[in-house]
Amino acid sequence: MADMLSISLVNELNYEDFIGRFGNVVEHCSICAAAVWRNRPFRDVHHLHQEICSFMDLLPDTGKEGVLRLHPDLAGKLAELGSLTQESTAEQKAAGLDTMSPDEKQLLRETNIKYREKFGFPFVICARQNKKEAILKGIVERLEHSAAEELNIGIEEVKKICLLRLLGIVIDDKSHM
Amino acid sequence: MADMLSISLVNELNYEDFIGRFGNVVEHCSICAAAVWRNRPFRDVHHLHQEICSFMDLLPDTGKEGVLRLHPDLAGKLAELGSLTQESTAEQKAAGLDTMSPDEKQLLRETNIKYREKFGFPFVICARQNKKEAILKGIVERLEHSAAEELNIGIEEVKKICLLRLLGIVIDDKSHM
Repeated sequence: MADMLSISLVNELNYEDFIGRFGNVVEHCSICAAAVWRNRPFRDVHHLHQEICSFMDLLPDTGKEGVLRLHPDLAGKLAELGSLTQESTAEQKAAGLDTMSPDEKQLLRETNIKYREKFGFPFVICARQNKKEAILKGIVERLEHSAAEELNIGIEEVKKICLLRLLGIVIDDKSHM
Repeated sequence: MADMLSISLVNELNYEDFIGRFGNVVEHCSICAAAVWRNRPFRDVHHLHQEICSFMDLLPDTGKEGVLRLHPDLAGKLAELGSLTQESTAEQKAAGLDTMSPDEKQLLRETNIKYREKFGFPFVICARQNKKEAILKGIVERLEHSAAEELNIGIEEVKKICLLRLLGIVIDDKSHM
């Protein structure tokens, strides 16, 4: 907790420090933090989250697809190489993706490839809110959706991931301000 | 040149390799490359540039401000620490910013601070197309503009920087395709 920020400290950050701290709450997509800095003061961490969500909603569809494309495949090449961001590593571990059987790994790998080929972006799911069984079931089901449906579902998952990452940085003190 | 790509090779890249190659043509803003990948095939490097420009034009003003905030101060702290991206280092050197006198450095530093305080984003200029004298003159003049004017001018400068970075990656073969 020593490292956590109160919302009043967040509101005092200049944009460089703000981006340094919040630049990866949406994976590899610092523009989200960079865009909302102007909207200080934030009432609490949920207000900050809401501003980031609203910014993502304003992106054209190509931009939303771009947000998804900046996410790694679950249990993909980057995870095997140990090259995920710190946040993604912890999230994939929390879901138990590091304990998949060889068959489960194979299924996830193959379905990921089909998903990317169909939609042109990776399957994104809030790993911390799903165990590996739900993730494997989810990707098979979501593969049947239309691209428009998956774009929306993917962005909603990004928002959930973003909130959990924010809650790891900012103290959730709703009584503040 | 050995490392340069033809446009047909560019058009064959999967999105991960595309983002890996073009992720910093807009400084720290990989979403620009990630967003336009869908628009392949590109006729030539200028077509790719145009797609990135159109994407930036579609961003809400907060997003455009975010793009500017992801740029470093010219001859600022990051340059002194040697922490600029490779691209920014070369560009600032080409403008002669590494040969400023102490007085020039002081003027640029002070004016940068005033600019950031007034607009909430840094002064962005295509350093490769301007020598240090023009940059110093430019920042003093642009400080007098409105925020809306500077947002537009800054984004137009980002587009020029982007084209020069693209021309360092993709062979400019207008006869292709």
